[in-house]
Amino acid sequence: MQDALLLSARPGIIQFSLGLPSPDLFPVEVVTAAFADLLSRGSSPLQYGPPTLTLKSHIVSLMRTRGVECTERQIFLTNGAQQAVYLIVGILLEQGREVIAEELCYPGFQQIIGFYKPEILTVPSDRQSGMDVERVEWYLERGARPAFIYAIADGHNPLGTTLSDEKRQRLITLCCRYSVPIIEEDPYGFLSYREGAMPPLKARQADLVFYVGSFSKILAPSLRIGWLVVPEKYIPYLAILKESLDIDTATLSQHLAARMLDSGFLSQHLARLCSAYKCHRDTMLAGLSACFPDGSQWSTPDSGVFIWVQLPEAFDATHLLKTAVDGYGVAFMPGSAFCIRRNDTTAHSSLRMNFSYPSTDLIKEGVLRLGAMFAATTLGRTNGLNQNREHIANPWAG
Amino acid sequence: MQDALLLSARPGIIQFSLGLPSPDLFPVEVVTAAFADLLSRGSSPLQYGPPTLTLKSHIVSLMRTRGVECTERQIFLTNGAQQAVYLIVGILLEQGREVIAEELCYPGFQQIIGFYKPEILTVPSDRQSGMDVERVEWYLERGARPAFIYAIADGHNPLGTTLSDEKRQRLITLCCRYSVPIIEEDPYGFLSYREGAMPPLKARQADLVFYVGSFSKILAPSLRIGWLVVPEKYIPYLAILKESLDIDTATLSQHLAARMLDSGFLSQHLARLCSAYKCHRDTMLAGLSACFPDGSQWSTPDSGVFIWVQLPEAFDATHLLKTAVDGYGVAFMPGSAFCIRRNDTTAHSSLRMNFSYPSTDLIKEGVLRLGAMFAATTLGRTNGLNQNREHIANPWAG
Repeated sequence: MQDALLLSARPGIIQFSLGLPSPDLFPVEVVTAAFADLLSRGSSPLQYGPPTLTLKSHIVSLMRTRGVECTERQIFLTNGAQQAVYLIVGILLEQGREVIAEELCYPGFQQIIGFYKPEILTVPSDRQSGMDVERVEWYLERGARPAFIYAIADGHNPLGTTLSDEKRQRLITLCCRYSVPIIEEDPYGFLSYREGAMPPLKARQADLVFYVGSFSKILAPSLRIGWLVVPEKYIPYLAILKESLDIDTATLSQHLAARMLDSGFLSQHLARLCSAYKCHRDTMLAGLSACFPDGSQWSTPDSGVFIWVQLPEAFDATHLLKTAVDGYGVAFMPGSAFCIRRNDTTAHSSLRMNFSYPSTDLIKEGVLRLGAMFAATTLGRTNGLNQNREHIANPWAG
Repeated sequence: MQDALLLSARPGIIQFSLGLPSPDLFPVEVVTAAFADLLSRGSSPLQYGPPTLTLKSHIVSLMRTRGVECTERQIFLTNGAQQAVYLIVGILLEQGREVIAEELCYPGFQQIIGFYKPEILTVPSDRQSGMDVERVEWYLERGARPAFIYAIADGHNPLGTTLSDEKRQRLITLCCRYSVPIIEEDPYGFLSYREGAMPPLKARQADLVFYVGSFSKILAPSLRIGWLVVPEKYIPYLAILKESLDIDTATLSQHLAARMLDSGFLSQHLARLCSAYKCHRDTMLAGLSACFPDGSQWSTPDSGVFIWVQLPEAFDATHLLKTAVDGYGVAFMPGSAFCIRRNDTTAHSSLRMNFSYPSTDLIKEGVLRLGAMFAATTLGRTNGLNQNREHIANPWAG
């Protein structure tokens, strides 16, 4: 990811690769005012300090908007969602235990479990309804007792899927029946583009679901604040482990976030983010329809920041990436980057496209450039995309 | 440590227990101005970003003031010094290898190696000249090949010692002869109270010394920024490990620290800190002489923020702590908290006293209270401290 950050920093590259927030939507004025206010009252935000209780209270309120009832004593603050997952995996994963995860899976999670080298029982994912819960049941019925099931129910990374209501219920029923915990990573769940979004898994089962949240996509990534919502008995273990890793999460960031939320601006800010990102998403979808090869498939994400595009099988996305960056100035993530198994058969021709970071103008330009790239390839030509460069030049007109 | 933070937050407790900076010496105005300036130029400090190169350049300059020549490519930024040690231990410590550390050792380091459970070859420490390097040699001569030697050459935690020039040279000679790396933790080395302070071990040997620095004691702990200076070939391994743990160090903190250092205020700020802490130290030393039981021993630290006090052996410092907090409103760290071996024979009657956090007035008041506590104990009385409460009431007069 650091490499991808460096790549995306190259001037002129249109960046669909990472899950970065839009630079145009950061609450700069709110941050600036909060910081000035913070230090006008004394130097204590610069000192070591215990986790900020007011920030935990704001998180309790925020979780309530998603239908999760919890208390400050169940919240554990972390250095971003990644550390939250690292910590809870360290606590749940005993040596020799297997875990259940989807075949296509966030690489940050794969890095974490790479330390422990458990057997990973993989399940496929439906591109509409998410994780194949029947396969989960199949494992459990046959005696598997994994340390946990790793799930992203909303705005799935990399697939963009929303786990269906029926599957959520089934998954919770299974985890209760077999006493298997779920790690629910939810950095994108607050970015929802449809009315009546479903509550996270945590809202249905408090004791077995270990929820991971983050301010990275809804306030600012550079604060590096994530959180866990877990049964209270796990908090002391998390505290000991966290203290060994890095003593504490940047207290200045904690105070700053708390002061920002004190102003009550977040609900309006979230509405603004959702409205803007929905527009980004629709712009990208229109472009894909117009510019991508016949036979390409994708779904409309209800939440999050990614669209998963399945190209016709003859395409090799990793190979295409080099052409796209060097020849057309556009970056994306090839699907193979997300495969838990190296020999996944469909991911090689897939790509993950982020729509939150680039402006709608850059989304149009970037998708047009990719369209030109497809048109220029032999494969693109066989898909009939070469002749009609004019036609795809402005799918957003009118 | 989180428990100690909570204890120290109790109103009315005079706090000699933790290594916190003085709340009166934080550069509040510089931080405030730097933050306002930072965001006036755009929102990029709020975004994800690669490690901040300008901050690395400032660290290169800062290391040069200590006699260490390095480049930006050898600097790795971390979430405080604790994470720096966690990362480098993870890289250097192969399974089954032993390590060398002092019998009295920073608990944060003990927590880290607790994950790996190596055999720890302990060496004693002289209260004046630091680590017993002859014992290190004894191990190496007999065939020990530890994964690393853990050392704090300046402002030792908990002992307050400065490793002597002769021992520094001997330790470096040994690490070269036997190809054994040294992890040099140096959060306190910039707080030096004598002319002509020695350069750190890193200045004498660049390839085998892995240096850990921190802004926590010299700018602000709540920024949570530490750094490693290591041979460049280790940087990619550190980057992979760090990314798994928490993606990156709070980028906002990095930008903020860099902007603060841009102003060139640090050398003056360090001079101010050293001058003030020297005064704190001398105030505490005068108080110890006047108020602590006959037969107590301590050394004058040349750097750092701790004084190690050895009480007469009949005292039990852990037992005293409860009396000190509950009866006299004063907290310190009992020596046993730092023992690698549980059966250490002298540490039980020792205590670590911090002089950076409390003001000189609170240092006076706290040491007087401890004096009253000693005077009130049977042990204090046998040491002739009970009769003359007036005598110890104002050792700082005149």
